Amino acid sequence: MPGGTGAAGGGAGLLSEDDRLFAGIELGGTKAIALIVRGRRILASARFPTGQPEQTLGVIGDRLEAWQAEHGRPEALGIASFGPVGLDRSRADYGHITSTPKPGWQGTDLVGHFRKRFGLPIGFDTDVAGAALAEHRWGAARGCDVAIYITIGTGIGGGVIVNGEPLHGLIHPELGHLRVRRTAGDDFAGVCPFHGDCLEGLASGPALGARAGMDGAAIPDDHPVWDRVAAELAEAMAMLMLTLSPRRILIGGGVFQHRQGVLARVRARTAERLNGYVAGVGEAELAGIIMPPALGDRAGPLGAIALAYRSS
Amino acid sequence: MPGGTGAAGGGAGLLSEDDRLFAGIELGGTKAIALIVRGRRILASARFPTGQPEQTLGVIGDRLEAWQAEHGRPEALGIASFGPVGLDRSRADYGHITSTPKPGWQGTDLVGHFRKRFGLPIGFDTDVAGAALAEHRWGAARGCDVAIYITIGTGIGGGVIVNGEPLHGLIHPELGHLRVRRTAGDDFAGVCPFHGDCLEGLASGPALGARAGMDGAAIPDDHPVWDRVAAELAEAMAMLMLTLSPRRILIGGGVFQHRQGVLARVRARTAERLNGYVAGVGEAELAGIIMPPALGDRAGPLGAIALAYRSS
Repeated sequence: MPGGTGAAGGGAGLLSEDDRLFAGIELGGTKAIALIVRGRRILASARFPTGQPEQTLGVIGDRLEAWQAEHGRPEALGIASFGPVGLDRSRADYGHITSTPKPGWQGTDLVGHFRKRFGLPIGFDTDVAGAALAEHRWGAARGCDVAIYITIGTGIGGGVIVNGEPLHGLIHPELGHLRVRRTAGDDFAGVCPFHGDCLEGLASGPALGARAGMDGAAIPDDHPVWDRVAAELAEAMAMLMLTLSPRRILIGGGVFQHRQGVLARVRARTAERLNGYVAGVGEAELAGIIMPPALGDRAGPLGAIALAYRSS
Repeated sequence: MPGGTGAAGGGAGLLSEDDRLFAGIELGGTKAIALIVRGRRILASARFPTGQPEQTLGVIGDRLEAWQAEHGRPEALGIASFGPVGLDRSRADYGHITSTPKPGWQGTDLVGHFRKRFGLPIGFDTDVAGAALAEHRWGAARGCDVAIYITIGTGIGGGVIVNGEPLHGLIHPELGHLRVRRTAGDDFAGVCPFHGDCLEGLASGPALGARAGMDGAAIPDDHPVWDRVAAELAEAMAMLMLTLSPRRILIGGGVFQHRQGVLARVRARTAERLNGYVAGVGEAELAGIIMPPALGDRAGPLGAIALAYRSS
């Protein structure tokens, strides 16, 4: 899913067998990706910086309109958004971004905006629930009754699929803000404005940068910060195994994308924490549970398409 | 649900409107309860010590047989068992107790035993999933898309209901073994043989007894141990809010049954930990989420009945 606009053939084999047209928007905190697919083919995709709401949603809508003129009217539009978002259809804040600290976006009515402009059925959920749904439909979580997708980037978020549907209760999971036990002698205060040393405050890109004194992407795999971070992530993995009993925990996002060695350390520490209690799950079994997403960085935008499929 | 055998009228208004006959067994680590219900009435119930498997299942079966002779053949039998249990119908260990440390019970085929003896449809799950299902059907979790039932007694366990069904993934939730951050200056090692200071190792009846130097039930509500325990339980409550986004967390079991003041402290500490991040959920809202079960100590045996309903 490269930047700019263009036809991308990378979806071949992933999407539906039929020939229907769907559009999607993955709205992230720093960038948005719009795309349009027909059957198995991604016809076009485009990337936009996430600026102020009216302007950002306007230019995305203009692009969708241009694609509609070129390719025809989509069956449905999927919107996978950064959160927290309103997901209860009986409430007035359904389809809105709710309590975000992101300037200007609090209370933005995403579903209302695009429904008014296009009159299409709209599938809506968090960006991470969309990615989890895409992995469940086309990726590494196919056939899994319980599956989790976690993204570790500028923030940490997670989506949960139970029996083919995103998990919604009071709101939706907020896995990035779990509090974990720290390793001995570690006094890093964490960078989360709400919680300090929650998972996002400890292991997101900005947190890693602050801990290692260099850009997160530049930290070598043998840097000592990974020992602490692997232990902290393992605490969260053990929590997820004990609360949700997932068959997959797929870890995506920029920070871990090419860090197989760190992921192996996370699995080893997770096995230590579970200590044989979850029947038959040791380090070897965790290699088939805690994995990278099969769709890679396409999980997010294909998540928007998976949400469009659900709505139609 | 008193000990011994007898008709219990306490179910009036709780159970189904129809007049069908169902039987249930709640199999706990120290005691088992069998019961038979018709429509809204509990016709009879009986309590048994949990001894060796063959003897225990034998005398429970004898009682069910006597009830069947008196009342007729039930539509189905529900079994709600201590765990871990096998819940995947495609596996050979379905219906078995799997890796329990309880002497003699590892590998016991509960469903096979009663199916062979009675030839009835059998509903099967953990004791806590059964209790959660009963609270969802007749109790404090009615209408909740996501609900959790936790029992704090000689051990700690939890069942999760999502969209009306017990949550099963790789296995089932094991909420008692969550690891939580400890309060400053606390060096109690915990009593869990697997994990030391997991939730069960810190806050179960035996753990409380060890921490306070007296029987758990005798600890006064103003004993300082509750400050630490309320903080530890609040850590777990915050984890559950962030992972499962439940509308109810019902806390039952012997330890907390009459400790409303401690429960209020757990809610206050939970609100501090979430720190406003889960939209609109502060201490006041948590009073409608973290609650005692409406069915009280009948949640367990009625859980077996709720499982019987599901199977027929």
